Amino acid sequence: MSATPAYDALHQHFARVGHLEEALEYLYWDMATQMPEGGAQARGEQLATLKVLEHQLSTDPRIGDWIARAEGEDLDGWQRANVRECHRLWTHATAVPEALVEAQTKANSACGQIWRTARPKNDFKAVAPYLTEVFARAREVAQIKGEIMGLDPYDALLDGFEPGARRAQIAPLFDDLAAFLPGFTDQVLDAQARRGHGVFPTGPFPIATQRDVGLHFMGVLGFDLNHGRLDVSAHPFCGGGAADVRITTRYREDDFIQSLMGVLHETGHALYEQGRPLGWRAQPVGRARSAGVHESQSLLMEMQACRSREFIELASPVLARHFGGDPTPWAPDNLYRIYTHVERGLIRVDADEVTYPAHVILRFRLETALIDGRLQVADLPGAWREAMRTTVGVENPDDKDGVLQDVHWMEGLLGYFPTYTLGAMMAAQLFDAACTQVPGILPGVAKGDFTPLLGWLRTNVHGHGSRLTTDELMTQATGRPLDAAVFKAHLKRRYLDG
Amino acid sequence: MSATPAYDALHQHFARVGHLEEALEYLYWDMATQMPEGGAQARGEQLATLKVLEHQLSTDPRIGDWIARAEGEDLDGWQRANVRECHRLWTHATAVPEALVEAQTKANSACGQIWRTARPKNDFKAVAPYLTEVFARAREVAQIKGEIMGLDPYDALLDGFEPGARRAQIAPLFDDLAAFLPGFTDQVLDAQARRGHGVFPTGPFPIATQRDVGLHFMGVLGFDLNHGRLDVSAHPFCGGGAADVRITTRYREDDFIQSLMGVLHETGHALYEQGRPLGWRAQPVGRARSAGVHESQSLLMEMQACRSREFIELASPVLARHFGGDPTPWAPDNLYRIYTHVERGLIRVDADEVTYPAHVILRFRLETALIDGRLQVADLPGAWREAMRTTVGVENPDDKDGVLQDVHWMEGLLGYFPTYTLGAMMAAQLFDAACTQVPGILPGVAKGDFTPLLGWLRTNVHGHGSRLTTDELMTQATGRPLDAAVFKAHLKRRYLDG
Repeated sequence: MSATPAYDALHQHFARVGHLEEALEYLYWDMATQMPEGGAQARGEQLATLKVLEHQLSTDPRIGDWIARAEGEDLDGWQRANVRECHRLWTHATAVPEALVEAQTKANSACGQIWRTARPKNDFKAVAPYLTEVFARAREVAQIKGEIMGLDPYDALLDGFEPGARRAQIAPLFDDLAAFLPGFTDQVLDAQARRGHGVFPTGPFPIATQRDVGLHFMGVLGFDLNHGRLDVSAHPFCGGGAADVRITTRYREDDFIQSLMGVLHETGHALYEQGRPLGWRAQPVGRARSAGVHESQSLLMEMQACRSREFIELASPVLARHFGGDPTPWAPDNLYRIYTHVERGLIRVDADEVTYPAHVILRFRLETALIDGRLQVADLPGAWREAMRTTVGVENPDDKDGVLQDVHWMEGLLGYFPTYTLGAMMAAQLFDAACTQVPGILPGVAKGDFTPLLGWLRTNVHGHGSRLTTDELMTQATGRPLDAAVFKAHLKRRYLDG
Repeated sequence: MSATPAYDALHQHFARVGHLEEALEYLYWDMATQMPEGGAQARGEQLATLKVLEHQLSTDPRIGDWIARAEGEDLDGWQRANVRECHRLWTHATAVPEALVEAQTKANSACGQIWRTARPKNDFKAVAPYLTEVFARAREVAQIKGEIMGLDPYDALLDGFEPGARRAQIAPLFDDLAAFLPGFTDQVLDAQARRGHGVFPTGPFPIATQRDVGLHFMGVLGFDLNHGRLDVSAHPFCGGGAADVRITTRYREDDFIQSLMGVLHETGHALYEQGRPLGWRAQPVGRARSAGVHESQSLLMEMQACRSREFIELASPVLARHFGGDPTPWAPDNLYRIYTHVERGLIRVDADEVTYPAHVILRFRLETALIDGRLQVADLPGAWREAMRTTVGVENPDDKDGVLQDVHWMEGLLGYFPTYTLGAMMAAQLFDAACTQVPGILPGVAKGDFTPLLGWLRTNVHGHGSRLTTDELMTQATGRPLDAAVFKAHLKRRYLDG
């Protein structure tokens, strides 16, 4: 008989949860990339059933007992961390009464549906009552979770995506950035105007060639095609699991510039997945640490490594060779200008590295106010316009491209937005530490050898799964917890000195 | 409150089972068509977990009570038939003790694995102890199920694939065919020698063109691409579910002849799936009736409709146009000779319509003898060679292409083989009845309009799901239960008169 019967039971049980969640991943991927339209309703039923089973497994009443007993068993470090992560997941899964879970699911789904038709019509009024319901249910959930976990309600939501993160730590980081960015952006725009804009290559860019080039650079970055695929979907994403990662992109015959960076971004996510500890793959401790750390890996590849001069110089002749035509736009200097172009705009997903954080900060400030009850949904459009003016620095003429632009709130995804900018800051701090510790990384990027970089990430980020907390991970990897300094320094170097 | 609470509970429970089984279908399809090799182990774990959950749901102790109470509720015809099918599935799922299920799974898997390496080495001795174990476990299972269901042990296995079928009814049908086929085949071969053989078109046949032609004829037959796909896998199959059917094929640049009929065969399966009653899709009563009825639908399309002179004349100019080259081999007469070529051979899966039943009959006779205990595994190779000589009419030089050729027994699939030939006989009897009742069917096939045929199949076969027993289905559709007469008449007409 095993000396750790409670731990073993926990491990076996969570393996089932993990496999079921992986199965869901492939069904979602199939839905987005392969499924004919007529399969949608049946797929919805399949997913709903699997999610019910997953919920039943995750809230199995025996889990609490196994955890309590396992904590007294003689476990190694990975096992102990696994119990901690099982505990965390179990707390989140069981905190909220079934009836509230159901009410919230319904509210989120109803609002999401209304939003799809209301947004094109610029009709916030149609959305408002549904969104009010979404926030009401979210506040209830936040309150209940917060009480159980001893957290501020907003932090209880945040913890679901970014374990351990607290608004009290995030707010000063974001305030720091919010103070820095407006003046900095002005400087960048001045410098950019002096340098002149890049010239876009003109297509058509054959899709088969775009795919070949995408696969080529995925390989350069270290993507293992024996454990993953590249496909097409309406909205690019990274799905699947560590042993078989599915990334997607979309192609436009008239534009290759965005598509390439999209693939490199998803490749960053995929490399994290492929680097998770395979033996712990399906266990809570083997999962990716958080949404923010995941985003740090995509942004580290896209923003830190692949928008560097080194990478642009590597890519330039490859692109010129594959697409031909006028070579001028493919010249390294021109490509670099295109790939580091900065412009204030209304839309978060179109924002560049410099202006993106302002979009996130305004959402963080508004959603905390909404959860706190300091702001009402009815006042949201006005608050949004005001914040766009002061934080991003643009006038927002309508709600369609304003408060209605993102699906997140509409489907009850609250506490998620900050992870984008936490990820951007982590990416800068991790990449800086990596390049300092391993001087061969940037020269490697320049010659298309990503193994020094990938090796460092495997050791310092990917291979840990969720064994370390994010604070521990950042401290062990970079010598200190996350702050905004390296990110700001990176922006200055690239956009003012570059 | 509902007037049928027990039925409702049963319905809801089996919907979950149905959705879970559909989910498994798409994971299998993905494994065969999309998954990179490195995902195999993780996929195995995902499938195993989903199968454990499916087994737990299927054996839920509440089911027996729901069934007993539902049988006393006021149900309509579909609901009553659904309870009957739930009962059948529940009996099969719960009959065998967990420990024996596990022992059987292990035995089947071990034998299947050994077989993969032993077959190329022609090494029956290596397989024998494992196959002995497979049959021992299967006999135990058959015995237990047989006692519970009041059936002969072999019939209890057969019933898992062909509900309601009994060896006592099959054996005379097969004896009839076995007496008829050897002399008939001699006659066919004589006639064929007199007529001369067809000339094969020479490739290469570009794979994109093969795919286009396959999709074209899938459309002609009535395959709905809004509810299905065509992809590539090592072994062609039809998977997925009614709302989203996934068929596969394989391509060889040097051969198109086999590939086309492969696609049409799978399309026949797919049309059955797409025609199942959508509202009952995930319920037991909404499933395909049996393995034999499923095979009848693929063979009805492939053998009855698409190897007819009418279809060959329709296909001839389409193939000539797509593939070009020397037009002679694409001429209708020549194509018809190719597609109705008969030849005695060693390998079941390569057999034609005339010689195929003999392969099945010998397997039926041997597997019944093995389950009865009248034959031992050690004596199987000798018995096989003897049966090949007397039943198929060829000498079998080795075990590799003899008793080791099929995976079925090696993985414990016993009671399945008869369904191939039951399907062939059903196909003939159904097609004959359809053409008699709807005179426009064959003229429709000739001009590429399959709607009269598909309409008849929708009404008489597909739309019933499992509401009727196979006997009821055949009797309602054709006026009498299955017999061998129409199949024999079809063979005579095509191969002697044609």
